[in-house]
This record gives sequence, structure tokens and C-alpha cells, in this order.
Amino acid sequence: MACSRNSLVSFFILGLFTVLISPAISSRVLSSTKRPVNGESRSSVASYCESWRLAVETNNAGTWKVVPSKCVSSLETYYNGGQFDKDYNVVARYALAFAKTVKIGGDGKDAWVFDVDETLLSNLEYYKANGYGSEPYNSKKFHEWVVQGTAPGFDASLKLYTGLKNIGFTIILLTGRDEAERRITEKNLHDAGYFGWEHLLLRGHEDQGKAAVKYKSEQRSRMVKKGYILHGNTGDQWSDLQGFAVADRSFKVPNPIYYIA
Amino acid sequence: MACSRNSLVSFFILGLFTVLISPAISSRVLSSTKRPVNGESRSSVASYCESWRLAVETNNAGTWKVVPSKCVSSLETYYNGGQFDKDYNVVARYALAFAKTVKIGGDGKDAWVFDVDETLLSNLEYYKANGYGSEPYNSKKFHEWVVQGTAPGFDASLKLYTGLKNIGFTIILLTGRDEAERRITEKNLHDAGYFGWEHLLLRGHEDQGKAAVKYKSEQRSRMVKKGYILHGNTGDQWSDLQGFAVADRSFKVPNPIYYIA
Repeated sequence: MACSRNSLVSFFILGLFTVLISPAISSRVLSSTKRPVNGESRSSVASYCESWRLAVETNNAGTWKVVPSKCVSSLETYYNGGQFDKDYNVVARYALAFAKTVKIGGDGKDAWVFDVDETLLSNLEYYKANGYGSEPYNSKKFHEWVVQGTAPGFDASLKLYTGLKNIGFTIILLTGRDEAERRITEKNLHDAGYFGWEHLLLRGHEDQGKAAVKYKSEQRSRMVKKGYILHGNTGDQWSDLQGFAVADRSFKVPNPIYYIA
Repeated sequence: MACSRNSLVSFFILGLFTVLISPAISSRVLSSTKRPVNGESRSSVASYCESWRLAVETNNAGTWKVVPSKCVSSLETYYNGGQFDKDYNVVARYALAFAKTVKIGGDGKDAWVFDVDETLLSNLEYYKANGYGSEPYNSKKFHEWVVQGTAPGFDASLKLYTGLKNIGFTIILLTGRDEAERRITEKNLHDAGYFGWEHLLLRGHEDQGKAAVKYKSEQRSRMVKKGYILHGNTGDQWSDLQGFAVADRSFKVPNPIYYIA
């Protein structure tokens, strides 16, 4: 039989395509988890960083200074891939479910404590621009970001905050921010959609240099002395939740970017 | 020109292969995460279960009865894929690193407390055969497993235990197991490679029905009254670590299979 050179050539190219491209496709699929990073495979770095993040969230890591540089890309994936938001959502849902079981007295003394940074307001934009916590804390630079007052709220914390208000809880905000930052903090919180808190407690002169867990315990203790019942407390740091005058239930929202002693 | 029908046919088949198979390959790659499970995509179930596990490990979930049935396959992957072991290893390394900073007095009073089940001994074999914690706790069935005395140790806890002994810590084992299970527990621990503990504290008659956190706090308190300094405490349950007479540092090893109040 006769056949055109063109058809033969086109089938040949098509055939060659299969032979050459198929392995390339499959190797691309595999290599994303297999390519080594400083001798470690990407998958082993990723699973170490997952373990590291769990150790941080459970407070097993204790005091730590910066995010391991090899875990920065895992954190990017954690935030940009949406798992951080899902994790935060689940915590907020557990908090609201507990809140619904509390008998509200109606005297305004049934209280819920919230931390501010990384609990009600997100500074992720700042940390994205500053190595996702892999760079040492720069108080001057962070203060410059804070006074811009542009930190957004978390959808899940807004839902929780509003849900608690609707149930009848009195909201107490307890932050490590300085008294000098009160105005901008109030404005930022309002712009982010938070309204109607009873107290916004910031560090005064007498609180300078105090460990966060001591400062926050003392402030909660003052609230208890005023007659508030601290049913719940939400914070991104263990130092927001531990110490004395702790709430009946504490909720640790995720923050694998920095640690405050 | 002339050409053989065979070569033409073989090229044709080769060409057809590319066109038909390539999409099949890529769709197979995608579908593993996209296939729906009761309306939810596998990936959204997996990320919910990851959030649920984090909420459990951080104690945000509070009291819970069983593993959500939709998370059983995520737990299988967590254990069989090796992430559980990696998570446990990282906690054990943090614990040993802390232990090395403790100044040992040499009077035998520097102590470390260990829980037993899911901390020194793994009952995973039992739970694998019983729905990975998705079935309600069956005390009779679990007791039958316990008295077999075949629970293996965790590599990481064996390393930690031995490391602490070498540093000079006195080991106190504090378990919710019954006094009647002392013999088999001692044998199982020895078979798993644990030796030389100072105390093995089990529930006596007076401890029946006590909440774990109360029972364990009372036992730690007794040890403190005996003059022990509780530098560290390792457990898989928050009720192993909280309450009163808590250790200087507590280490929560992972256990997303069951909760003990």
C-alpha cells in the first residue's frame, strides 16, 4: 500500500511524544515531594515541620525564638493553602459550643476574655513581609506596623466574638500592647468589626518588663475581684491562658509564627 | 514511497495511546483528593480531620467521646504513614533537651513522672482492631487486651526513659490502671524494655471513680510530700498533666484516639 510521508511523520512524532513525555510527567508528579533540600527530602522536611508546629501549638516546644528557616515554606503552605483558617475555625466552633452551655446570670458578670494580636487581629501581612517569624522580633518595626492600625480581623474570631455578645457575655480584651497604643488599637478593632467590649486592658507603666503570663494573670485576677466570672479565654499564646485566675475553659488559637514568654 | 502496514499501525496505536491515556493519568492523580465522601471531597474531610486532631491535641476540643467516623481513615494514614511517630519523636526530643538543663542534686529526689498507656506502652494494636477510637470505650474488652500484657513500647519513649535514667532522674510511673493489674503491667513494661523505676502508682480502692485529673494530682502531691521535685511529666492525656502538684514542665505526647476526663 502507499501512504503519505506526512501522516507517517505525524504518527512518528505523536509516538515519540508518548515515549518522551510520559516519564517526564510522572517524574514531575513525584519530584515535588522527593527533591532534596540541604540533603533532606522535601517530604521529610515537611513532616518535621508538621511535628514542630504541633509541638509549638501543644506548648511542648516551650520557649522558642524564631521559626526554623527550613519550615518557612511549610508555613506559607499552611497559611496560603487555607489549613490555618480551618484550624482557627474549628477552635472557634468549640469555643462557641462551650459558650452556649454557660448559664448567663444577666448581671453582666459572665465574662469572656480575648487577647488581641493573632487572636482578634491578624498581623500576618507584617510577618509575610518579614520571613514568617524566621527573623528575630524587631519591636521598632512591629510597632511601626501596629500604629498603622490596618490589621484585619479573623472571620472565625469575628463570628465567635459576635456569637458571645449575642449570648450575653461581657467581653474583656486583654493585650500585651502598651497603654500608649490604646487609641490606634481601639480604632483598628472597630475597623475590623469588633464593637461593644467592656474593658480593653493594656500594659501600663507598672506592667513594663513583666512576663506576659504574670501580667495577664494579674489583670484577670483584678477582673475576678471586680466580680466577673471568667467562663472563657481565647488567645494564641499559652501565656494568654496559663498562670492564675485562669478561665473555666481556655481556647488556644493557632499561631506557629512567634512565641511570647 | 512504500511503507509497511505494521509500522504504520504500531505508530497509530502509539499515537492513540498518548491521546487516550494522558488525560486518564492526570485525572487519576487529581481524583484521589477530589473524590467525594458523603458529599464532602476527600481533601476537605482530610483537612477537617487535621483541624480536629489539632483541637484534640491542644485540649481545645475539651471532653470528647469517640473519634468522628469520617476521620478514621485520616488516623490510619497518620499512624501508618509515620507522622504519629515523627510527632512523638519531636516531643520526646524536646523533653530530653529540657531534662539536660536540670541540675541533678544526687539525692534521688529529682523526679520525672510518666503515664503508662499511650505514653510508655502502645495499645494501637487494640485500637486498630476496634475502629481507631471511633467505637465507644469497652472496659471489659480493653481489660482483656491489657491482661495479655503484649503492648509494645514506643521507640521514642524508650529513648527518653533511658536518657532520663542516664541523666540521673528518679522515674515515677503514674497510671489510671487498677492495682489488680500491677503484676501484668510490671511484666509488660519489662518486656517492652523499661526497667528501674522507683514507683509504679496504680488506682487503689480509694481511687475508684475519681476523675483522672484529681486522682493523678493527689498522687503527684503525695510524691511531692515525700520530697520529690517533679521536674518533668509525660502523658498522652491533659488529665495526666493538669490539676495540682504539676511538674515544672509537662510534655503532651500525641493521642488522637481517646480522651480521659
